[in-house]
Amino acid sequence: MTSNISFTHDTIRAVQWHGDHLRLLDQRLLPAEEKWIECRDEASVFHAIKDLAVRGAPAIGIAAAWGVVLAAKSGQPLDQALAHLRSARPTAVNLMWALDRMKARIAAGADAAALEREAQAIQDEDLAANRHMGELGAALIAPGSAVMTHCNTGSLATSGYGTALGVIRAGVAAGRINQVYAGETRPWQQGARLTMWELVRDGIPAKLIADSAASYLMKAGDVKWVIVGADRIAANGDTANKIGTYQLAIAARHHGVKFMVVAPSSTVDMATVSGDDIEIELRDAAELLSVAGRRTVVDGAEAWNPVFDVTPADLIDAIVTERGVIENPTTERMRAVFAA
Amino acid sequence: MTSNISFTHDTIRAVQWHGDHLRLLDQRLLPAEEKWIECRDEASVFHAIKDLAVRGAPAIGIAAAWGVVLAAKSGQPLDQALAHLRSARPTAVNLMWALDRMKARIAAGADAAALEREAQAIQDEDLAANRHMGELGAALIAPGSAVMTHCNTGSLATSGYGTALGVIRAGVAAGRINQVYAGETRPWQQGARLTMWELVRDGIPAKLIADSAASYLMKAGDVKWVIVGADRIAANGDTANKIGTYQLAIAARHHGVKFMVVAPSSTVDMATVSGDDIEIELRDAAELLSVAGRRTVVDGAEAWNPVFDVTPADLIDAIVTERGVIENPTTERMRAVFAA
Repeated sequence: MTSNISFTHDTIRAVQWHGDHLRLLDQRLLPAEEKWIECRDEASVFHAIKDLAVRGAPAIGIAAAWGVVLAAKSGQPLDQALAHLRSARPTAVNLMWALDRMKARIAAGADAAALEREAQAIQDEDLAANRHMGELGAALIAPGSAVMTHCNTGSLATSGYGTALGVIRAGVAAGRINQVYAGETRPWQQGARLTMWELVRDGIPAKLIADSAASYLMKAGDVKWVIVGADRIAANGDTANKIGTYQLAIAARHHGVKFMVVAPSSTVDMATVSGDDIEIELRDAAELLSVAGRRTVVDGAEAWNPVFDVTPADLIDAIVTERGVIENPTTERMRAVFAA
Repeated sequence: MTSNISFTHDTIRAVQWHGDHLRLLDQRLLPAEEKWIECRDEASVFHAIKDLAVRGAPAIGIAAAWGVVLAAKSGQPLDQALAHLRSARPTAVNLMWALDRMKARIAAGADAAALEREAQAIQDEDLAANRHMGELGAALIAPGSAVMTHCNTGSLATSGYGTALGVIRAGVAAGRINQVYAGETRPWQQGARLTMWELVRDGIPAKLIADSAASYLMKAGDVKWVIVGADRIAANGDTANKIGTYQLAIAARHHGVKFMVVAPSSTVDMATVSGDDIEIELRDAAELLSVAGRRTVVDGAEAWNPVFDVTPADLIDAIVTERGVIENPTTERMRAVFAA
């Protein structure tokens, strides 16, 4: 189903609950097409997550919570729904976190209406967290700075506003950021397709760069911060995020550029000791061997296609969550904020 | 004009002189299509260089030399032809070097037949240099190594065999290299389209990676060397090469991976003191805003699209030319080999 809803700046909501069904903006087709997927059962939510129609760690968690609500409303066994949704993507811990939260309510005897309120709470809290992180992160940035970001961490990846892109929005509004550079983020082009779409809509001065141009830009330009999101943050601050994040962190350190990770506390996984324990999703080689549906590489070629990488804590200057800012993260500093 | 010539391993020659015209394999269309461009005048050679039908610093120089021959045969003023060809691309010094060599012959009174012999000498010497560099570079690599390369520096980029890819070919033949990783090289995908095409044809174990996956691969894998070509090497060893090379050099140093630059001596420009003096070509933003001819980024978006970057000499472990290997290059060490 396709519709051409026009958004205003405050209302990009890529994950929308409509009382009896979930509507998801299909992020695989943006910016060429604004197509909405209507999910009326848990299975369709599962496929939307697995097939990347909805992406971004917080948005995945929120969508999964609504998937549980749909299962409850249809009388589907909830244990089965939880297990199925949990298997949709391995790296983003927000998925597990949201499902655990729904599971606890189920264990406490919640009915479908109560589960609906819980999913709504997860979504509302995410938006509030983003706004708060925006302020906290922006306060770290000196007025007149250029910044760089990677992948998409904006309204599309969350309940709205964004994590790293929320900091950028807040920083622009506060006059601290005057130029944004977005890496295109091969192979899915989330930076090129999604982040540039959000930035242009907001009228934020932004330029797209090839992922491999980041270091030259840091050397030639006035970039002061690299600001990224996260799919999982381990107990020591090691951070899994979109492939290429680690490379940006190395380049940032080399040039004296600061490196900020922005994510809600649901992304922090204190049960994961370090980045070595994070499962990294490998996706199909075909994603690299074809571009825009056309085969671009010779037949018989192989590819190695990890979707995420891990940035060690010692390359991170600040982790920003809605609970506060952790500078130069260590296990001790993480525990002070996130101890169970 | 299109033809379907089948190559054998030893005979990829992307720049072919046929007595009265030059044939160029159109590298923009590979691997989907093997189309040859027939150049019967200097202007068509100019456009083939400018529009990237022929690319790779050594191949550009060779093609330009044949362009001068075509000008001479048609009676075109040679001063005009030299100036025109010189303006086709700004960064690759091999273009200037080859034209200077032709200019010197013109100044010495050479006729068209003598200019034809000079162009052939340029082409033959490049092939011999590649073979010799292959042996020199391969000798630096420990048996059983994986290596990474960027862009295309193979038969397609030279008279044949290749510079960095020549070292890789020689290293595989000598049992020193057992796995090659090729970065796709956005935005033109020379690694994905061209290097993988050459490697698969040669039966060399190779995997394509996203440019942004290089650092994670260095951390996770067994890469021992990054091996790249060059478009210009300054007197102090600073090296201009395809955008992304500098980022690879930073990542290599961070992981203790060695970094090798392979280029014929015609790429060395002792008149350029350091990388700061190298003009970096900026190309059209459209190259990043569209993929495979389809617009992928929202209307109104801007992009920053430098085609090259400069890797400082202190991140380079070895520069390999046909005159020998310069380890940890400095102005002094460069002068010892390349003093005029």
